[in-house]
This record gives sequence, C-alpha cells and structure tokens, in this order.
Amino acid sequence: MIQVGIIGVGTVGTSVAQILKDNADIISARAGVDIRVKSGVVKNLKKDRGLDIKITDNADDVLNDPEIDVVVELMGGVEEAFEVVKKALRSGKAVVTANKALLAYHRYELQEIAQDIAFEYEASVAGGIPIINALRDGLSANHIKSIMGIMNGTCNYMMTKMMHEGVSYTDVLKEAQELGYAEADPTFDVGGYDAAHKLLILASIAYGIDAKPEDILIEGIENVSGDDIAFAKEFGYAIKLLGIAKKDKNEVELRVHACLIDQSEMIAKIDGVMNGISVVGDKVGETLYYGPGAGGNATASAVVANIIDIARSGKSKPMLGFDKPLEGELTLKPIEKIESKYYLRINVSDKKGVLAKITKLFEDHNISVETMLQRPTSSDSANLLISTHVAMEKDIQNLISTLASLEFVNSKPVMIRIV
Amino acid sequence: MIQVGIIGVGTVGTSVAQILKDNADIISARAGVDIRVKSGVVKNLKKDRGLDIKITDNADDVLNDPEIDVVVELMGGVEEAFEVVKKALRSGKAVVTANKALLAYHRYELQEIAQDIAFEYEASVAGGIPIINALRDGLSANHIKSIMGIMNGTCNYMMTKMMHEGVSYTDVLKEAQELGYAEADPTFDVGGYDAAHKLLILASIAYGIDAKPEDILIEGIENVSGDDIAFAKEFGYAIKLLGIAKKDKNEVELRVHACLIDQSEMIAKIDGVMNGISVVGDKVGETLYYGPGAGGNATASAVVANIIDIARSGKSKPMLGFDKPLEGELTLKPIEKIESKYYLRINVSDKKGVLAKITKLFEDHNISVETMLQRPTSSDSANLLISTHVAMEKDIQNLISTLASLEFVNSKPVMIRIV
Repeated sequence: MIQVGIIGVGTVGTSVAQILKDNADIISARAGVDIRVKSGVVKNLKKDRGLDIKITDNADDVLNDPEIDVVVELMGGVEEAFEVVKKALRSGKAVVTANKALLAYHRYELQEIAQDIAFEYEASVAGGIPIINALRDGLSANHIKSIMGIMNGTCNYMMTKMMHEGVSYTDVLKEAQELGYAEADPTFDVGGYDAAHKLLILASIAYGIDAKPEDILIEGIENVSGDDIAFAKEFGYAIKLLGIAKKDKNEVELRVHACLIDQSEMIAKIDGVMNGISVVGDKVGETLYYGPGAGGNATASAVVANIIDIARSGKSKPMLGFDKPLEGELTLKPIEKIESKYYLRINVSDKKGVLAKITKLFEDHNISVETMLQRPTSSDSANLLISTHVAMEKDIQNLISTLASLEFVNSKPVMIRIV
Repeated sequence: MIQVGIIGVGTVGTSVAQILKDNADIISARAGVDIRVKSGVVKNLKKDRGLDIKITDNADDVLNDPEIDVVVELMGGVEEAFEVVKKALRSGKAVVTANKALLAYHRYELQEIAQDIAFEYEASVAGGIPIINALRDGLSANHIKSIMGIMNGTCNYMMTKMMHEGVSYTDVLKEAQELGYAEADPTFDVGGYDAAHKLLILASIAYGIDAKPEDILIEGIENVSGDDIAFAKEFGYAIKLLGIAKKDKNEVELRVHACLIDQSEMIAKIDGVMNGISVVGDKVGETLYYGPGAGGNATASAVVANIIDIARSGKSKPMLGFDKPLEGELTLKPIEKIESKYYLRINVSDKKGVLAKITKLFEDHNISVETMLQRPTSSDSANLLISTHVAMEKDIQNLISTLASLEFVNSKPVMIRIV
C-alpha cells in the first residue's frame, strides 16, 4: 500500500482524497497497489471537510511520518511551500505539487534536491490537461519549435465574452468576479502573472530555461477595449491572452500578453474558461491539448495521475525532470529583440495632416503598416487602428514613446501583438 | 546502446530511421542511452532509401539477430505481421507497431504473448497525437465516460471541403485521390473501416472490450449529400465521421459513422486532414487531443517516442497494455439498443397528404420529430430533412425500412446520427 499525506486540504486537496476513494477500483488496478490518504494538513482544524482521514495543523506530522510515501503539496504560496517540499524530498518522500508559483521560482533548486526521488507537477500547468506528460513522453522524439497556450481560464472567459457578446472589460471583469473566476484583486490573472508561471514551467521542460517571472515579458488584458474587438472582427482575428515560448536558433523567447490571432487557428477557437496548449515539434508538426485548466476535480485528476505513476514505478523516478529538458544549451532572448506583427490603437485629434504625420513616424521607425482603420470617438477625435508587418519590439516601443509625446495624440497608444 | 530493427521500411520506416539520426542529440539525452537502427527489412531490395542501415528482404535476419533489442513493425497487413510480431515477442524483443489493422484483430493475443515484454503502439491511433499516452497515464485517475474522435483525416478533409466550399462528394473524393489522401479504392477510409480499427484500440485501452470490426456498427460518409450539408448549416451542425465509444452502466457502445455535431463543440471545429479525439473522464471532464493523424514524420514521431520510452525503462514494461484497461467487466452494447438523435433525408413525391402520412409513421415508431425542412428536388419531388429527439436504433431502422417500401418515397431514406 502507498500512503499519501496532503499538505493543504482545500478544494483540490479534498478532491484528491475523494478521487482516491471514489475511483479506488481502477486506481488500484492501474497502480498495481492500493493508494490511501493517511493524513492531511490544514490551517483551520475546526472546518469539517467530510473526509475520513487524520487531520492536523502541523505539516511535520506528515513530513516526519515514516509511513507516508508521497507528499502532495497543495498549500499554495512560495516560500513556506518551498520549505515543506524541500523537507519532504530530503526525507526521501516522493512529492506531487500543483503549485505553479513555487515552481516558477524554485523548480531547479527542488529538482536538484530531488535527484532520483519522484518529484511531479502535472497539475501545475493547465489543470486537468496532461500537457507535461505529452511534452515529456509523447513528443520526446522532437525538438520543440514553439509552445503557445491559453493558460488562464479567467482571461479566456473574459475575452470570449467581450468578443462574442460585446460586453465591456469592466462589466465582464465584474461578472467573472461574481462567478468566482476572478479574485477581488484580479491582477494575478488579468495581469498575465498566472499564465507566466505556467509558461516558465513548460519552457523549462522544453528548453531548460531557468528564468524567473521578472526576466520575461508579461503583459495582461487590462487595456483591451471594444474598439480592439471591433478591429479583430473586421480582420478575422480572435483576441486571447497567450503564453508563448519560441525557439530561434540558440535563443528562446518567452512572453505572455494579449494576442490577435487568426480565427482559423485551432487555439483561436478555444472559448470560455477552457485552456488549450499548442505545441509544434520539428517532426510531428502541431499538436494541441485542450481541457479544463482549473477546478477541484480537474486539477486533482492530474495530481492523482502523478501519484499512480509514482506507485507504478516503485523506486524508479517515473518522469524526467527539469534537469532533462527536451532541448539543451539555449538562452533567453532579450525582450527588445523579439519580433512580431503589431496592432496599435492611437487616439488622435481629428485634424488635417495628423494621419500623414503618424504614418511618417511609422516609416521613420522602420515599421511598415499592413492595415489601417479609422473610427471616430467624438466629434473631434478618432481612433486609428493600425496593424503592421513584422517589426522589432525595440522599434515599436520607441514608436509608442514618440507617439505618446505628440500633442495631437490624446493618450498613450495601446499595442497588441499579432501572432 | 539500444539497437532497433525496422520491418517494413516505407514512408514511416524511413522517417523513423531519419528521426533517430536527425534528433540523436535529444533522443540519447532523454533515453539515457544511444538508440541506433541496425537493420531494416524491405520487399524490394533494389529501391534506394538513402539510409545507412543494413537492408535485407528476410524478416528473420532481424528476428534472429541477438543484437536487436526493439523490433519496429511497419509492414502493414494483418496475418503476416501477426506472425512477425509473435516471433519477435517470443524471442524476448520489445515490439513497437503502428499497425492498426493488426491490433484491431489480434491485440489481445499479442498482449498475452508479450506479458512483461514491452509492446507499444502509440502510432496506431491518430498518428502523431499522443492519445494512448494520455489515456494510459494522463487520465489514469478517471473512469472514462466517452471517447469521440475524428480518426480519419481523409474523411475529415472531404467533409470540410463539402461543408465550407460546397464541393460535391464525387468531386471531393476525386480531389482527395489526386492529392494522395485517398486510395484508388477509397472504401477503407470513406467506409469507416480505418476509423473503426483505431476506435477498437482505444476502446480496449479504456474499457477492455475485445471486439472485432465485424462486431460493431461501421458506416461511412458515402451517402452524405449537398442537401445534408445545407441542413447542417441551417441548424448549426458540422458533419464529421466520428469513432464513438460510450459507457452506459455495464455496457459500452462502439460505433463509427457520419455524425451531425453542434458547431460549438471543439471537435466540430477540427477541419481539413487533422485528427482530434475528445475524451470525457468522470473527474477531469472533457479533454481533447488534436494533431496530424497521418504522414511519415508525424507517425514516426510516435514510434520513436515509444522506442525512447522502452529504452528509458530498461527491463520494465513502460506502459500498461490491453490487459489493464481503465475500466473492467464491461460488455459490448448490442447495436439495436444504441440511442441517439437522428437526421433523415427522405426523397418523396410532392403530393398532397404525403407529409401527414410520413409524420404519422414517425409517431407509430415512437420517434418524435424535432425539426423539419422541405426542399424541392424537381417539379414533382422534394427532400424532407427531418431531425428527431432521442430514439432507439432499432426503431429508426424499422422506420427506414417502412419508409423505403412506400410508393411515394423515391429512394431509401438516408440517415445520419446526431451527437
């Protein structure tokens, strides 16, 4: 029998215990051994979780229990969880975690401590979608050319509503908060940080890039407006918050931001709270993985799959870790060197000569205009909605600074990258 | 070093050898050992394949070579391949196969012979999509409620062209043949048999159902016409050839046929030659896997992933086999007990009273009409396009027989199931 200790018995932890009980028949059959949750650690001992396991408020009760084989870390947060996982690995216990923030900051240190002890984290990216399994095993014959994913259900829900129902950003955020999809302070989701944590985990698996969130380009969806949606519709795009990892010779670019993406792309067709990740391998071409990115049962499904894998593998480490990326010897591409097509929304005073001055500035910055749409916003101002051919991030940022300083430009232009 | 022998060095076999060479860097790193193709077996020794491996026309040269660790079977066909794979397994060699026809007929016998020897077949279903990996490992915590997949790229290409470009069945078939997507005799693809082979493999993994193609409902796309496409568009459906496995208490229904499916479903959005498989687990909900279902490199990507897995696992069998399904003790549901919504196209003489007689017949067979569309096909005939609420397969078949025998019904009605 394999005995499990759960540190952090909240929504996901409760689901893990429940699945191990509900589906014990197939789980035992597949693991080749019974798996049982022995104990769980919580902050508040008074709350009844309806589980028949030993509950304690001291993590050491699990970490020091010689009968516990697998520690499931679901407490969230970074530094406290880091200490707990280190201690578990050092006492020779296998660890399964769904904690993306922990991994975004400490994945390499933990991998180093784990060595040959199983350290698994399928649930940390895209909840119930077995994307890490796919990268590690299913696509192991490939050099990975790119990963592009909808990794935050909250943002995708909001973008879908704005796109298909014409709801404003403010209203859809309020609605997402009421539905429990977004927090009271929604920054972590709508600012792109949650997606960035997940992207860093996938990028380490694919490319061995040891970057922290601070090192990469992270922007959110806060500036997307009805005019941008109208432009997207006019030119056949969807707007999505994407996490993107892309290999270019010996460099990898990592970025999270709102994107205009052609509606015919599979990933553009993923709507609502669902997640989806497209992976392009040099041999297989594009494969895409779709499913629920959050929720107790979906996330717990991935946690339990890791536990089954560990139980089946006995002493051997079932899956390769961050120390064995799909690619080697790659470095992070500096943000200013990123190349992309861009969309700009520039609110200008509607005066004679303004358009000519602005298009001249594009030329001066080596940026070539692909499409342009002008929409009046009042009797004396208009939005210029402009898409460009491929340009350099550095050039576009300079252009935006220049534009923002002009008298007839009414506010800082809004930019969305086109993929 | 792991040495591989390839039996059948055609398009996929050549790609397998090429990938093992091109991507030797990452493959060795991930497998923990070098992997090398030692020899290949072909029918025609004279054809140059541009590979630097030993080529022979005698399978025994590989099967009796004590240095060969892994036999890759890519010869196709059923009985001859069966003999080769049996012999390989009996001499203790791991086997990787992409041969869906072989598995559709002999998977349980081969699993029985393999016992603890690695016997892998990721490439047999949906080419480069790691769907078997996902079922076996990623979703291992779940009871599988259903599997629904676009498993034949040829049919999906044809349906997409008919739907989006209004091309007729005859023209699109000719085009698919010219592009090499369809054979001169296209029956194996358009008749649903290829998809059925793949469905049986997935159904065995999920449900342990030892059915042969003869035991299940297999229909193709041959009867889909422009009128059906028009109906689909009118009511928000796509038309796809789907392989469906669905659990209902202790029974599993397995069927392959053209389907009308709501355009908002992810699987309805998969166009062109691409494949996609939706899996619903009792805990995770719906996940979907999308990618290329055919092609040398895509298929070889899956074959090589299996070889890497075997190399990594040393002596232990890396993946569970047909003997360890995700569910147990299930039986095949008889075809006549299948329940579905149905669409019927009935060509009738356009006379007074015909509509009343036909709707009366629906009632008499316990079938309730949901929508109806009448389209004239000539000055004195019309197509009735009718969709029903959920009905029994037995009842609908009886209704069709009755309708076909009526004087004012001009040809046997065409039926497409709605999912």
